[in-house]
Order: sequence, then structure tokens, then C-alpha cells
Amino acid sequence: MDQPFLVPAGSRVSLADYDPDYTGSYVDKAAAKAELKRSSEKLQDLQEVMWAEGKHSLLIVLQAMDAGGKDGTIKHVMRGVNPQGCQVTSFKVPTREELDHDFLWRIHKAVPRRGYIGIFNRSHYEDVLVVRVENLAPEQVWQQRYEQINHFEKLLADTGTTILKFYLHISKEEQKDRFEARLRDPHKNWKFSMEDVEKRELWDSYMRAFEDALSRCSAPWAPWYVIPANHKWYRNLVISQIIVDTLTSLDMRYPPPLPNADQIAIP
Amino acid sequence: MDQPFLVPAGSRVSLADYDPDYTGSYVDKAAAKAELKRSSEKLQDLQEVMWAEGKHSLLIVLQAMDAGGKDGTIKHVMRGVNPQGCQVTSFKVPTREELDHDFLWRIHKAVPRRGYIGIFNRSHYEDVLVVRVENLAPEQVWQQRYEQINHFEKLLADTGTTILKFYLHISKEEQKDRFEARLRDPHKNWKFSMEDVEKRELWDSYMRAFEDALSRCSAPWAPWYVIPANHKWYRNLVISQIIVDTLTSLDMRYPPPLPNADQIAIP
Repeated sequence: MDQPFLVPAGSRVSLADYDPDYTGSYVDKAAAKAELKRSSEKLQDLQEVMWAEGKHSLLIVLQAMDAGGKDGTIKHVMRGVNPQGCQVTSFKVPTREELDHDFLWRIHKAVPRRGYIGIFNRSHYEDVLVVRVENLAPEQVWQQRYEQINHFEKLLADTGTTILKFYLHISKEEQKDRFEARLRDPHKNWKFSMEDVEKRELWDSYMRAFEDALSRCSAPWAPWYVIPANHKWYRNLVISQIIVDTLTSLDMRYPPPLPNADQIAIP
Repeated sequence: MDQPFLVPAGSRVSLADYDPDYTGSYVDKAAAKAELKRSSEKLQDLQEVMWAEGKHSLLIVLQAMDAGGKDGTIKHVMRGVNPQGCQVTSFKVPTREELDHDFLWRIHKAVPRRGYIGIFNRSHYEDVLVVRVENLAPEQVWQQRYEQINHFEKLLADTGTTILKFYLHISKEEQKDRFEARLRDPHKNWKFSMEDVEKRELWDSYMRAFEDALSRCSAPWAPWYVIPANHKWYRNLVISQIIVDTLTSLDMRYPPPLPNADQIAIP
């Protein structure tokens, strides 16, 4: 399996090397959308076996700049999965109770149980992104977190959770276009926030923080992928295919048939 | 809106009066499936407004005999909704910690937050169904619960949660057919359990317990519906339409546009 978007463990990521406009061999969205539909159907089948087998769980972590497409990815990639086996957690500004615990406490509570797909819309990575860039904790605190995150994710992986982490890579220009679209469209206005605009000023600092997180926390058992995300249709397809390939490689099976199934009579 | 499956508040339900084979004016599933597709698209749009508005939440309670179709209803009716705004909770045998609290404690923790659809696969009604039929608590305890449930649901309704409760009504013969299908199909074997078969002996007691729950806990703010469920395609369509009609009646709106949207410049 060719993995052009995978961050190899131990490598140093420079986001400038990744083209957010990249669309591979696809020239328009029609073909990609048809391909996404096929991929989604495979995902539905795989989710059903995962649920029936009750052995594995899948954790998908989504991180991006504002308007990077986290919500859209969930909506379009996960559409069609059975909501009974899929749990999305959006991590927002921590509550007072959450802040009175270590930064992984609220995260650990939300990891998917066996048979489930868990999706993190933002995650523990905020604690080395916004916290670092906006000086919400001393450097000595957030510097320790990369290793703490690696240990935590290793625990999950060792105990049955398959982890996939996607950084949705958009350009600063694309973010501007998306903010402007939110201002223009009355059905999107509610997504607009002046705070998001203010964060644009810190774009370069965020890129450095992302580069560090991607470089220091991509492991064979919890890989990061840098997904070209200026084109939503390409982003959706790539993510769907990585999920499908990963679940396929788990070689999941329905539980074995009951040995005496043909002898059981229903009264 | 004609509501043939609604249990009017204060009425006495006799399940023998409801035909589980009923399919209304539909003679086959093709037309019903096409209609379900249209209903699902409306549901997706309504969910998006509900999410954007962040004012209402919807709680769907599913109860049925084993093989009554709770899982299938979730899969087929909720397919296509955005999993980000939809949370399914399956209530199983209570844990030790749950039993050390009142019976509504674990239920209350799982109610949907504003903007969300919450689905209960089984619910607090088990505490007046299995608990009653299998004598897991003294009558004096479960007799109090109908009123406790009514008060609890009133609290939810008063504070922004729209409640819909569906009893999936299958015949005893249909249950037998479904159990046999689970035995025959290796992909369904894992759903089969001898315990479920043993419960068939208590069918009539369960019917009486359901009749009491439906009669005593159908309120204008938390109605019960008896859904004809021998035909899965009809069950799915009816439930989808009731959800769509209910959400439509909430008259939800996208938040008002920002007053100064056209004056904001993105740097």
C-alpha cells in the first residue's frame, strides 16, 4: 500500500513540502465522488464486522486550522456508517473540572470501546497546539506532553485500538476563502467567529506547532497523515480510503457459527 | 397530522388491537423504500438546522421484544444523519456502580445535549419491563417507577428535549422466524442467544408489562407510538416520518445572520 501522506515515524515534517492543493490523478470531483461512494460502502461493511466481532476499536483523530474541514470530513466520510457503532467527541475549551485533572483525563474517558469507531474532533493535540501557541501553559509543561501522548497512544494501541490521525492541510488563502463563504452564506454565518479570524495572525506559529506534533508523535501504532485538504472532495476520498485500507488489514471476521445451530429449535 | 400509531395520553393500550403486519396503503417495499429515502433526506436537513440552532434536542427511545428490530431501526432510519450530532446509547444489564444509584441515574447521564439527537436502544423502561416480568425488584419498587419516569421525562421536555418513544410491535411468530434466520445465517449467528429464546416463554407477561408502560407513560410531551414492525420496511418508514414531522413542527431556524457580515474583512 503506497502511503504518500503518512508521516514516517522519526521523520521531520516540513509542512511547506506538502501541497494542500494536491489531488493526485483526479482532475475533477465527479470521479472522486463516485470513488468515495464505493469506499463508503466498504466502510459500512467493515464497521459491521468490527461491531459483530467486538475485538477491535478504531480511533480517528482530526486536527486542522479553523475552517480546515473537520466537521465536513465527519459529515461526508462517516455518512452511512451505523451511528450505533460510531461516537464523535468534540473537544472544546476544557471545563473547570477537566482542568483540575491531567490533560489526558477527559480524552481517556472518550476513547472508543471494542467494536466502535471513535472520532475526535480536536483532541489531546490541542494541548500542544493552542496551549503552546497562545502560552496557556509554561513550555516545560507542554514539552513533556509529546512523550506523555506517545505513551498514552501506545497503551490504547496495545489494548486493541487502531489509531489514525489526520491533519487536514489547507493553505492560508483557502482559509480566507472559507471564512468569506461563511460570511456570505446565511446558513453558514453561525459558524463564523471573530476569534477564528484573530488566530490567523498566529498562522506561522501554528504551523510550527503542528510540525512538531506531527514529527514527534507519529508512530507505527498511531500514525499521523498530512491530508491535502484545499479540495474537500479529495480530502474526503483520501481519508475514507486510508480508513478502509487500515480496517481491511485487521482481517476481522464474524464470530464463528454456533456449532449446534441446526439443532436448536425455537418453540 | 393523522397519528394512527400514537398512544393517546390516558388511554388504555391493548396490544391485541394493533396489527403487527399492518402496512397502511403500501403493498410492497419498493414504494416504501423510495419514500424512506426522501424522508431521510429531510431528516438530514432538519438535523443540520437543529445542530446550528443549538436550542432543541431530540430523544428517541426504542423498546421491543428481542429481535423486534431496535438495531435495524437505528441502522436504517438513522443512516445518513451526521454522526457528529447523533449519539446512540445501548442500555444493557446495569453494572454494579449503576445499581448503586437510582434507576434513572445512568439514563440521565446519557440524555442528548442541545443540538443533538440521542437514541436509546433500550432505556429506563427496562426497569418496568424485564425487572417486573422477571421479578428483579419488589412490585412496590417498580410500581413507583411509572410516575418517576413521567416526572423525569417532563423535566427533559420542559428544558428543551423533544421525546419520541417507539414500541416496535412484532408478533410471536415473527420473532420465531427472525431467531431462525439468525441460526441459518452465519453473519447473523452472533446475534443469537439462548437467553432470548428462553424469554419467549414469558411473552404474554411481557405483553402485559408493555401495555402498562405504554398506557401509564404516554404523555403529550413524551408520547409512545406502537409501530407495526413485522415488515421492517414499513416500520422504518413510519418511524422516519414521525421523526421528520415532529422536528418540522419545532419550526427551527438557522441563527440570524450577523448584522455586520458584509463589513468584516478577512486579513
